[in-house]
Amino acid sequence: MMNNDFEFIVNELRKAPEVALFSHVSPDGDCMGSMLALGLALKKMGKTVYLFNPDLVPHNLDFLPGADLVRNILPDPLPQTLCFVDCTDLRRVNLKISQFSKDAVIINIDHHISNQRFGMLNCVQSDASATGEIIMALIKELGVPFDQEIATDLYTAIVTDTGSFQFSNTTPKTHRLAADLLESGIDLLQIHHRIFDQKPLAQIELLSRALKGLKLYAEGKLSVMTLNKNDFVETGAHDSLSEGLINNARSIEGVEVAVLFKEIEERIIKVGFRSNLWFDVNALASKFGGGGHKRAAGCTMEVPLGEARKSVIKAIEEELSLGRGY
Amino acid sequence: MMNNDFEFIVNELRKAPEVALFSHVSPDGDCMGSMLALGLALKKMGKTVYLFNPDLVPHNLDFLPGADLVRNILPDPLPQTLCFVDCTDLRRVNLKISQFSKDAVIINIDHHISNQRFGMLNCVQSDASATGEIIMALIKELGVPFDQEIATDLYTAIVTDTGSFQFSNTTPKTHRLAADLLESGIDLLQIHHRIFDQKPLAQIELLSRALKGLKLYAEGKLSVMTLNKNDFVETGAHDSLSEGLINNARSIEGVEVAVLFKEIEERIIKVGFRSNLWFDVNALASKFGGGGHKRAAGCTMEVPLGEARKSVIKAIEEELSLGRGY
Repeated sequence: MMNNDFEFIVNELRKAPEVALFSHVSPDGDCMGSMLALGLALKKMGKTVYLFNPDLVPHNLDFLPGADLVRNILPDPLPQTLCFVDCTDLRRVNLKISQFSKDAVIINIDHHISNQRFGMLNCVQSDASATGEIIMALIKELGVPFDQEIATDLYTAIVTDTGSFQFSNTTPKTHRLAADLLESGIDLLQIHHRIFDQKPLAQIELLSRALKGLKLYAEGKLSVMTLNKNDFVETGAHDSLSEGLINNARSIEGVEVAVLFKEIEERIIKVGFRSNLWFDVNALASKFGGGGHKRAAGCTMEVPLGEARKSVIKAIEEELSLGRGY
Repeated sequence: MMNNDFEFIVNELRKAPEVALFSHVSPDGDCMGSMLALGLALKKMGKTVYLFNPDLVPHNLDFLPGADLVRNILPDPLPQTLCFVDCTDLRRVNLKISQFSKDAVIINIDHHISNQRFGMLNCVQSDASATGEIIMALIKELGVPFDQEIATDLYTAIVTDTGSFQFSNTTPKTHRLAADLLESGIDLLQIHHRIFDQKPLAQIELLSRALKGLKLYAEGKLSVMTLNKNDFVETGAHDSLSEGLINNARSIEGVEVAVLFKEIEERIIKVGFRSNLWFDVNALASKFGGGGHKRAAGCTMEVPLGEARKSVIKAIEEELSLGRGY
């Protein structure tokens, strides 16, 4: 089933004495776990390995084995072999092709269907639930056994990109790979505890305030939550802690559209939109100068909170009253 | 690896023309999915099957194939073969042994370590992540193929009892069984949408009230939420809608033990316990006449709410002050 340049990549990595690995900005569990697993495997093969991420390692992933090796400056000089994991294109690492020497061997390993095949050697498998699935096959082919450290990195890659085996990219193969990784003696509890739990108390307090003010409109098809400036000040929560809150509004029975208003400053209102089955929130957000995807979008409005609420709710109610477009 | 009376149970179910299946009060995905899967399999074998649950099927599980067959009154007369799934003892189904005829064949299939082995035939496998794992082996042994309906019930049993493969009861075997079930063509998105989204508004309101009263003890290692009788009355929420709420208390940074007190009646307090890394809540719950697992347990106390809170919090604080036992 291995397609693309998989075998060529195995050969290139086998013979390279030095390899630089790259993962994308705003790193997630998949790009970080994939890069670290491959990096540790190559080190075990006796190679010199450089690990690069423009944003370094986020707090919830800094327990991953090898995380201490990640740098946000390029090695100088760059090795000849450069391997990009989970990056659709070079902009995802804030780099340009002109930064590399002409005889650099650029390897591109990814599972995004939109991958630009920017490498000299490309392995893009869009049926893989995570880039970690491809890296797992690669490490196996390189003949490096899965120790607990490598398995922890690979498991994290898979569990984060599948939403803990819930997203539609999860396949029977995904579960069988997870089974193999569990057999390497990884500490499941510790991994989940670090990735999914460990929420700051301020985040829970923010959730509590958001829920308290939750209101339904349009016969229950629209749910709205609001956090004003005071909610952030009094809980001590940074705006980033409000990420994911909107799903509590989205997951109410009968709701099609969920909105979260956040008063960042007095006349700076960030608005998040989610929809469940048919409402195009990208189109809606673009009416207010924002954008995103059909089911998840956002915009920023420079008006008082009350005014923002009024006009957004009115726009959605109008759209909902037209009904589902088919 | 099949221990206990597994083979005897297979034989008994093979020869029985009529079987009544029982699952526990406050039904969860495991007991309901397990009972329905076995019920559908036995029906496929041409048997008459009765499905009993004292509380019927909760809203979030009513999409499960076979859910419409569940009754909360006992068949009269009872068949000779009675099979209890996921029940530690008969009190879990609000029944007494004296309600059965002396020649009844009581089958007890469970994965709780605290199971009372109340059956004539007992299959208790505490290393199974869910009773659904045992039922899956049983159906296989009975020679019934896993169609999409049975697979949906079994997958739901496993995914709910493992917290989507996150809890420590998840094993390599669990993942391999899930892989097999995915191959039966189950609708992963639909299952997760129904189980984890689609929450009644009352459930969100219950969460809001639980969060509002959340308090930390023992230097932040213990988090406590409380729902009193009024919270249920005013939100119109049934007790079953409080399932999962406790995880909001458990997932706070620094918390080791989480407790949820629910005042069902004035002197009937249901207490749920969860722990993160080391605290044995099964041992704790057993001090109050309950039980369960090391990381998830519960008990019912027949005292006023304030008294229940006081004695449980005190017991946990004492245990926590002794520190981690190694």
